[in-house]
Amino acid sequence: MQRFEPNLRIPGPTALPSAVREAGARQMINHRGPEFGALFGRIESRLKGYFGTQNDIILLTAAGTGALEAAIVNTLSPSDRVLAVTIGAFGDRFAKIATAYGAEVTKLAVDWGQAAEPALLREALGRDHGYQAILLTHNETSTGVTNPIPELAAVAHELAPDALLLVDGISGLGAVPFAQDAWDLDVVVSGSQKSWMAAPGMSFVSVSERAWTAAETARMPRFYFDLAQHRPGIAAGSTPWTPAVAVLFQLDAALELMEQEGAEAIFARHAACAAATRAGLTALGFELFADQRYASNTVTAVKVPEGLDWKGLNAELKKRRLVLAGGQGKLQGLIFRVGHLGSVTLDEILGAVGVIEEALVAVGRPVSPGVGVAAAQRAALDVLAAGSSGTGSSGEVARA
Amino acid sequence: MQRFEPNLRIPGPTALPSAVREAGARQMINHRGPEFGALFGRIESRLKGYFGTQNDIILLTAAGTGALEAAIVNTLSPSDRVLAVTIGAFGDRFAKIATAYGAEVTKLAVDWGQAAEPALLREALGRDHGYQAILLTHNETSTGVTNPIPELAAVAHELAPDALLLVDGISGLGAVPFAQDAWDLDVVVSGSQKSWMAAPGMSFVSVSERAWTAAETARMPRFYFDLAQHRPGIAAGSTPWTPAVAVLFQLDAALELMEQEGAEAIFARHAACAAATRAGLTALGFELFADQRYASNTVTAVKVPEGLDWKGLNAELKKRRLVLAGGQGKLQGLIFRVGHLGSVTLDEILGAVGVIEEALVAVGRPVSPGVGVAAAQRAALDVLAAGSSGTGSSGEVARA
Repeated sequence: MQRFEPNLRIPGPTALPSAVREAGARQMINHRGPEFGALFGRIESRLKGYFGTQNDIILLTAAGTGALEAAIVNTLSPSDRVLAVTIGAFGDRFAKIATAYGAEVTKLAVDWGQAAEPALLREALGRDHGYQAILLTHNETSTGVTNPIPELAAVAHELAPDALLLVDGISGLGAVPFAQDAWDLDVVVSGSQKSWMAAPGMSFVSVSERAWTAAETARMPRFYFDLAQHRPGIAAGSTPWTPAVAVLFQLDAALELMEQEGAEAIFARHAACAAATRAGLTALGFELFADQRYASNTVTAVKVPEGLDWKGLNAELKKRRLVLAGGQGKLQGLIFRVGHLGSVTLDEILGAVGVIEEALVAVGRPVSPGVGVAAAQRAALDVLAAGSSGTGSSGEVARA
Repeated sequence: MQRFEPNLRIPGPTALPSAVREAGARQMINHRGPEFGALFGRIESRLKGYFGTQNDIILLTAAGTGALEAAIVNTLSPSDRVLAVTIGAFGDRFAKIATAYGAEVTKLAVDWGQAAEPALLREALGRDHGYQAILLTHNETSTGVTNPIPELAAVAHELAPDALLLVDGISGLGAVPFAQDAWDLDVVVSGSQKSWMAAPGMSFVSVSERAWTAAETARMPRFYFDLAQHRPGIAAGSTPWTPAVAVLFQLDAALELMEQEGAEAIFARHAACAAATRAGLTALGFELFADQRYASNTVTAVKVPEGLDWKGLNAELKKRRLVLAGGQGKLQGLIFRVGHLGSVTLDEILGAVGVIEEALVAVGRPVSPGVGVAAAQRAALDVLAAGSSGTGSSGEVARA
């Protein structure tokens, strides 16, 4: 049965609630005027809560990749030594940016699907701790794994106290608890099209005082992403270059909805939808790709079973207007990914699991009718009953 | 008399037509899917016409300043010699970007309000023509001056045939005729919030084959703005990083409106509104800031008369919901600027001139009632009757 509207279950951009969509249709305003200043102030102050920080948050008109570049070029100099802890395609990209700007990058690469275990970082820093910065991914979108950031940060602070911690929080912040200040992270970035329920185009960079100090001597060249050009405007609510005003209208509306829902409820909703996705797909006979001790609450990666053609299955899904994401890079054709972040609710996950069941039948892989949705529903209710929302503060983020 | 809606007369972001606004409220789609690919293709192909090029056009999620950075870092290496022809704040910014990335920049600075006369460039290149690149501003937003780009390009080709011509076309393209290929310009950039009638957030970079060749050996570091990462996706209609999808929805709608209106009619509309602005303000007793031989068809800069306090006048304008722009940098308090680009129509200019008359009276500068609007109306009709839309191909762009 075909839906009237697609069920957009990719890990961003995410479907926008009506109030957010409609905010995108507002007439333009003067981006140097008081109305924009108030908008900027509301957004920046509400973002701080989800970042868990008292830092100023810089709003960049760019995709998240631009914000990752900002994190690097503002804090480092060419030939600085950088440890890039990478667990997937986006960790690799973060490392590539540092390399492009002349850093001497050592990669601590973990098998895709695994998290970076704190013991592994301990071992790496035991061998060599002369790094100016350590790059960490909070939630790896390509594999559906959430790293144990607080534990990794603790190891880094113990063994490499002078290294700056630069964290890609693009696809996790706003969906799971995060505490930049408590965990003592130097730069954390996120992007509007992920858990924030807005269109893509804006990204956010939270910069610690230690990182601002590093910026004073950092010699990587920069202009558009030069955060020092942004800092003076924060008090007045203005940006040095013309910002993506309509995306900020949407973000403002989305943060208002998030305020009404409350952070705890948002985190619980994500945990429940993630558990439902994992349970539903497992019940349909799929194997999950990620180490389940570190399974992400925003995206689930699923192995394409041997003998099943992903393209054929995906064609059936598309016919039914369920939009999933394929694998990236070396995982193309080997996994598919289900996004459950932002405005996601349980009914959409149940719908997605139901459609996947239909599509399996259509490609000649019969399953026992209803097992997927039943398992998904039970798992979600279990999570909600247990009141667990994944604290992100232990190594056991949102166990299935 | 206060309008219900502000009359947004700043040089971008510009007011959006309803069809464009509403496109900003569309639900998100998969930015890796066929629907996005078709959208991308329509936009890229329609932009080509206004750029006057057969080049691929790269769509960047960034303010125009990001596109200027892309123009530089993709074509140059540190310590390359660059001649920055600057006639205002945005020309200065272009030069600063080149300096930030280590180019050896020579500034050919013209008094603000003046254009870069071809003879001046001839003289500069006669003294020294060992430049790898020449930076040119098409339309200088801070002063309301349009440079004679074809004549400047001809001088550059004659005296410095190996120099790349990098052109800031941000606030002029789409409003006046432009011919990148005929004028043999290497990189030309523009931005969505100017004449394109869409929200800010996307910028465009048209790259000649000569510039692509330069990119192969250019050593300035780059990642987010690395155009080579964008080029392979153009055929398929995809971008390497998540694009500002909602801005592209709007841009698509705006380009459809532009298609319906026709380029000639768009150029004539801008010429008429510009002439009306200049004539109306002159009739009200103001002196125009720009050399009128090169007066811009998208923005008019006006001197604040001696003894008149801009803040006081602007407060009266704001009460009446007319939103103008002040002076930038060293022109703060000395000029104000009226934007007449994008969706601008004559009635809005007449309204603006009328409100300025009211505000003058309110601050004790009585004017003869109606002289401004009458002069504005007459000037616009003269332009439309003459069929002149400013060819941009002579040094005499849209003489008043």
